[in-house]
Amino acid sequence: MNCVNDPVDDSVPPTPRAAENPAEAVEQQARRAREAWPALAEACEETRNTALQEAGRWLASHAEEILAANARDVARLEADPACDAAFRDRLLLTPERLDSLLSGLRQVAELPGVLGTEIRRFRRPNGLLIRQVRVPLGVVGIIFESRPNVSVDAGALCIKTGNACLLKGGSEAAESNRILTRGLQAGLQAVGLPAAAVQNVEGGHGAVQALVRLRGWVDVVIPRGSARLIEAVATQATVPVIETGAGNCHVYVDAHCDPDMAVNIVVNAKTSRPSVCNAMETLLVHAQAAPAFLPRVAAALLDAGVELRACPRSLASLQPTGPLAGREAQLARLVKPAQESDWAQEFLALILAVKVVDSCDEAIAHINRYGTHHSEAIVTNDPAAAAAFQARVDAACVYHNASTRFTDGGEFGFGAEVGISTQKLHARGPMGLEALTSYKYLIDGSGQIR
Amino acid sequence: MNCVNDPVDDSVPPTPRAAENPAEAVEQQARRAREAWPALAEACEETRNTALQEAGRWLASHAEEILAANARDVARLEADPACDAAFRDRLLLTPERLDSLLSGLRQVAELPGVLGTEIRRFRRPNGLLIRQVRVPLGVVGIIFESRPNVSVDAGALCIKTGNACLLKGGSEAAESNRILTRGLQAGLQAVGLPAAAVQNVEGGHGAVQALVRLRGWVDVVIPRGSARLIEAVATQATVPVIETGAGNCHVYVDAHCDPDMAVNIVVNAKTSRPSVCNAMETLLVHAQAAPAFLPRVAAALLDAGVELRACPRSLASLQPTGPLAGREAQLARLVKPAQESDWAQEFLALILAVKVVDSCDEAIAHINRYGTHHSEAIVTNDPAAAAAFQARVDAACVYHNASTRFTDGGEFGFGAEVGISTQKLHARGPMGLEALTSYKYLIDGSGQIR
Repeated sequence: MNCVNDPVDDSVPPTPRAAENPAEAVEQQARRAREAWPALAEACEETRNTALQEAGRWLASHAEEILAANARDVARLEADPACDAAFRDRLLLTPERLDSLLSGLRQVAELPGVLGTEIRRFRRPNGLLIRQVRVPLGVVGIIFESRPNVSVDAGALCIKTGNACLLKGGSEAAESNRILTRGLQAGLQAVGLPAAAVQNVEGGHGAVQALVRLRGWVDVVIPRGSARLIEAVATQATVPVIETGAGNCHVYVDAHCDPDMAVNIVVNAKTSRPSVCNAMETLLVHAQAAPAFLPRVAAALLDAGVELRACPRSLASLQPTGPLAGREAQLARLVKPAQESDWAQEFLALILAVKVVDSCDEAIAHINRYGTHHSEAIVTNDPAAAAAFQARVDAACVYHNASTRFTDGGEFGFGAEVGISTQKLHARGPMGLEALTSYKYLIDGSGQIR
Repeated sequence: MNCVNDPVDDSVPPTPRAAENPAEAVEQQARRAREAWPALAEACEETRNTALQEAGRWLASHAEEILAANARDVARLEADPACDAAFRDRLLLTPERLDSLLSGLRQVAELPGVLGTEIRRFRRPNGLLIRQVRVPLGVVGIIFESRPNVSVDAGALCIKTGNACLLKGGSEAAESNRILTRGLQAGLQAVGLPAAAVQNVEGGHGAVQALVRLRGWVDVVIPRGSARLIEAVATQATVPVIETGAGNCHVYVDAHCDPDMAVNIVVNAKTSRPSVCNAMETLLVHAQAAPAFLPRVAAALLDAGVELRACPRSLASLQPTGPLAGREAQLARLVKPAQESDWAQEFLALILAVKVVDSCDEAIAHINRYGTHHSEAIVTNDPAAAAAFQARVDAACVYHNASTRFTDGGEFGFGAEVGISTQKLHARGPMGLEALTSYKYLIDGSGQIR
């Protein structure tokens, strides 16, 4: 079955062929999304939930086609000499990842609805009753790279929250995104909602540039991906932006800590899924802990194949003695001197920058200088150090004695997530349902004038 | 006393002379603001409140100099042939307005603090304790026109919420803004906080352009003023923006309503302070109500000197009979046919567009097409019409039987306000303390890995 030429039914709006004039095609899509929006926003919660469940059924019954479409995307990527393992991993859908995607979708359908809920209600001395009520944002543009699961995660959260959405994925995932979006549209249509409320946007950079400048048609764009993508969107957009995803995350191992716990957290934060934004990129170690701790953690990291880019003082602790005895070859292959640029880099691979610091203050200053305000961790038994670190590190999520890998909508209990916000406006950290809403004030009077 | 050459004391950083290189001057100011920020953010609530009270004392004891500086600004404006009454009114500080400014400042100092408050706290099944805690935004740029009270209102809310701020007012209010900001700096210094946490930015459009592009130095910019200013900032900024202030507000008089109440609300919404953003700009009247209501309300509006720009069906009701009998000259002078452009215009003057509509639905559609998502009102006795209007009008504040003039931080009980947000992201409607904060997640574990 060729999914591209097999629309769910005739009422699915055709995806505009964007190659010739991407700006015009995207604007057409945005107009259709805005027209479709009120029906989605004004539908009752149950209708939107049923749409999500129907979408899940469609996607489950088309699993083979989805995996086949994804396999074609992966094959195309592999033919590109620039393809690396992290990139391929982000693009790949496996049966397990598809299952987890569908289970996320069902979870979203089951979450309590947020639209129409009263955030506050207060009466003023003049008798005016003011209610602050949660409403959808409107038309949301999601711009993402490689990971096709974002189509379903973000699309489902938008449907749940009454937002029409335009999903612009990376062109490397074109076939995967097309069929996944088709599943969401099938769900909408099954309950009589307009398919145009969720649309897959095709085309290259021209389409992105057009999308981020559709003031009046698009209420917010959410770039989700590399620092480069986010920077490009934030500097080009005239539509409000929520920046997400760039994660230059640190773990700081303090002077007084449980070294077993520290090794576990460091190895987990670096190696459990190095291609994602909440993976650790730099290890900071207190000078008092370094001589004993660095060789121990290095042995574990080297065994996991991690390349270490070490500051001069770390290098001094990475000698073939103690836990590193007999590892001359491994050390020679995997340990390199760090460059200044390593501190600012999101490797998204089995590479770790390592630096010795003289104090918790120095660790905080390093993180606030080089970090991306995403996820930062301290491992310590000292409550004062933990409190200072949590208060003064300027990041969305600040961990004490836990891995940075928990920064995730699912791990926070939000169901699926639409991204990790690294800005301070509107939403910060894992964004779930409420991050996709706004509010309005409804004011009831009896003729009050001012 | 020449306030400009009389700094509070030597430690006040000199205002950079921005004329030669505004971009460099603003970047220097932003760097100094960012350096000053942690001291302000980490100070205790009481210290920040005392700073505000000290600022109030300084400003009260310099009232004469402030009014004299403002009088010089007004005189300069009056010398400009382009000066109009609404513009002059916005610039003017009177002793009463200064009193109300100082009382707003005291109110802000007395408001409960919001920093450090726990928004949520939840424990995950794996034992992680997640706390969502309110924190400052960082360095906030406020860009505003003409009304110098914004310096104090916005500066005070920034100090209260631990945000450093760069205040860029209109050059027509240069002397007023300079001395008002000096008062806030005096308050900070009185409690040992760095004066650079609040700075007055000088220079013309070049300074604004530079300010809105200081990614990494400035966390958010808030333009407060005309639609033109907001559009310019939103399209040029690379820093996140909160759009505020453009108010093309409507009152819709439904078929079934109390006509006395409707007249009162319309006259109040148009005439009580026509130069501000929550003033009404277009009156919509249901066709059933128009023949009786329009002549009544027109008589009151014409007596207040309001020019009416009327659609053809309204014109038919505005004849010199009934309440308008004997008013031929007034009608000839003040009633004109509406142009298409009138529906989209924020007059900020004693001018009102008037249109007859056939239904509440038509009123809603008109408002959603031409409005600026600010403040909209329905006058009706029909609960179904009120509910539909409040649900479907896409605006920050939707009133039933009350004047649009209540959209104001003070009227909402927020103390002073930093603006009225007309966007949906982060904050909507009157912005008080919480709109100037973000949050972070603090996660405490016992070695959890994923």
